[in-house]
Amino acid sequence: MISGTTRLIAHVGYPTHTFKSPMIYNPWFQARGIDAVVVPMGCKAEDYPQFIRLLFRLSNIGGALITMPHKVTTQALADRVSVTARIAGAANGLRLGPDGALEADMFDGEGFVRGVLNKGQPVQGRSALVVGAGGVGSAIAASLARAGVARLALFDPNAATAQALAGRIAAAYPGIALQTGSNDPAGFDLVVNASPLGMNADDPLPLDPARIDPTAFVGEVVLKTEITPLLAAARARGCRYQIGTDMLFEQIPAYLEFFGFPKPSVAELREGAAIRY
Amino acid sequence: MISGTTRLIAHVGYPTHTFKSPMIYNPWFQARGIDAVVVPMGCKAEDYPQFIRLLFRLSNIGGALITMPHKVTTQALADRVSVTARIAGAANGLRLGPDGALEADMFDGEGFVRGVLNKGQPVQGRSALVVGAGGVGSAIAASLARAGVARLALFDPNAATAQALAGRIAAAYPGIALQTGSNDPAGFDLVVNASPLGMNADDPLPLDPARIDPTAFVGEVVLKTEITPLLAAARARGCRYQIGTDMLFEQIPAYLEFFGFPKPSVAELREGAAIRY
Repeated sequence: MISGTTRLIAHVGYPTHTFKSPMIYNPWFQARGIDAVVVPMGCKAEDYPQFIRLLFRLSNIGGALITMPHKVTTQALADRVSVTARIAGAANGLRLGPDGALEADMFDGEGFVRGVLNKGQPVQGRSALVVGAGGVGSAIAASLARAGVARLALFDPNAATAQALAGRIAAAYPGIALQTGSNDPAGFDLVVNASPLGMNADDPLPLDPARIDPTAFVGEVVLKTEITPLLAAARARGCRYQIGTDMLFEQIPAYLEFFGFPKPSVAELREGAAIRY
Repeated sequence: MISGTTRLIAHVGYPTHTFKSPMIYNPWFQARGIDAVVVPMGCKAEDYPQFIRLLFRLSNIGGALITMPHKVTTQALADRVSVTARIAGAANGLRLGPDGALEADMFDGEGFVRGVLNKGQPVQGRSALVVGAGGVGSAIAASLARAGVARLALFDPNAATAQALAGRIAAAYPGIALQTGSNDPAGFDLVVNASPLGMNADDPLPLDPARIDPTAFVGEVVLKTEITPLLAAARARGCRYQIGTDMLFEQIPAYLEFFGFPKPSVAELREGAAIRY
């Protein structure tokens, strides 16, 4: 029940019609008796930098979930930016630090990595291929680096994009062996499709599944289809895998910790959600 | 259930801890299946003018309930201000006009008058005494003028305040017979305490109840006590009366109409409210 003591978590993006977070967070807040609420705010790009500053001056603001089209701007405007957000060049979470500074972090990749770890696949010391070095690919690569991969290959049809991402990772994590230029999954413990390929029925595969090691773990970011052609092929090869929406649910506990709330399980969130994926 | 299509009604003031509107509006929205939510926003005075402009640029903003300390500022910053708000020198509701202009109105007095009318006491062509020409007294006087009183007496311990209010009313409603300088209730159809007297046990009475006509209707704005000493005395004289919280509940249908929602009954609102007064 919203009251005068309720902490406001703003869900800021534009347009808002497709927002799903309120239907996941709010039932969980209610079930746990937490006096907080996620509220969609349809803020346009031209208003965003000013709006965010004033939003975070409200006495009952508890944080913000940031989505399209503001993720890149958020990374640029925050007073303090996590290494992950800096590498990703984008942020999707904002909170006030104890000193009143605006702190930004990026949870897309964190959600992906938490999902992988929760499925029993170690990341520390392992090798990973990330295909697609756009927004979500950069975030996943940054989080894999943070989680301690030893070897990281980045591929993007735009070679310069992959190289730039590799450069940002190298600067922050000089110990990681980085490669770019190939989408060959052979020899990788972890294979990630972070490209949009798989959204449409007639998309080509993002990589050749016949080259994936059967012991590899395959992760997908496409949300539209649960089992994309890539995941179907990986499954047929005996690989373990992770579907796209796991990344979304797995980042919620990370967000909640960032805002200072107790940490839910993903099962708890999925069960309580007022929507189904 | 809040979703990406929910219309946001901001409840803006500072501090927010005593806000009660969310617990009245939100259960009613839910019961009626209306996709809207009232959300407290603790905005400080120095941020308010900028914040309000940006708030009303959100794509899902449906309006704002404005409370302390922003009512006077609201009247000053809106693009279009109702006559009632202009006389009151304050506004407590904001919406976007069809042309995108920020429109302000004042519902405190409207709530008072609706309560009086709903109790069967006519206002049109009648006489009224309003004791207290501060924020709420000005609002009530403005709404009584709008509702068509023929004669209106205004009293305030600060004579200049009452005279200034009378001047604003005279300018907008030249047909009303205005008086200032006396709190004698004799001969008035409607007697209103719009002063804070009655909040504390040892307050003097705002006016002499022995002088109230037994056929008069007596209205009170003090919220803290349901039956103030003035109301008790008026009741003992056989007068009909209205308690302070009626003004709050009666203004909600006015607010909802202003925002473009269907109109609830006050009984419906009182029954559904998640708080009790």
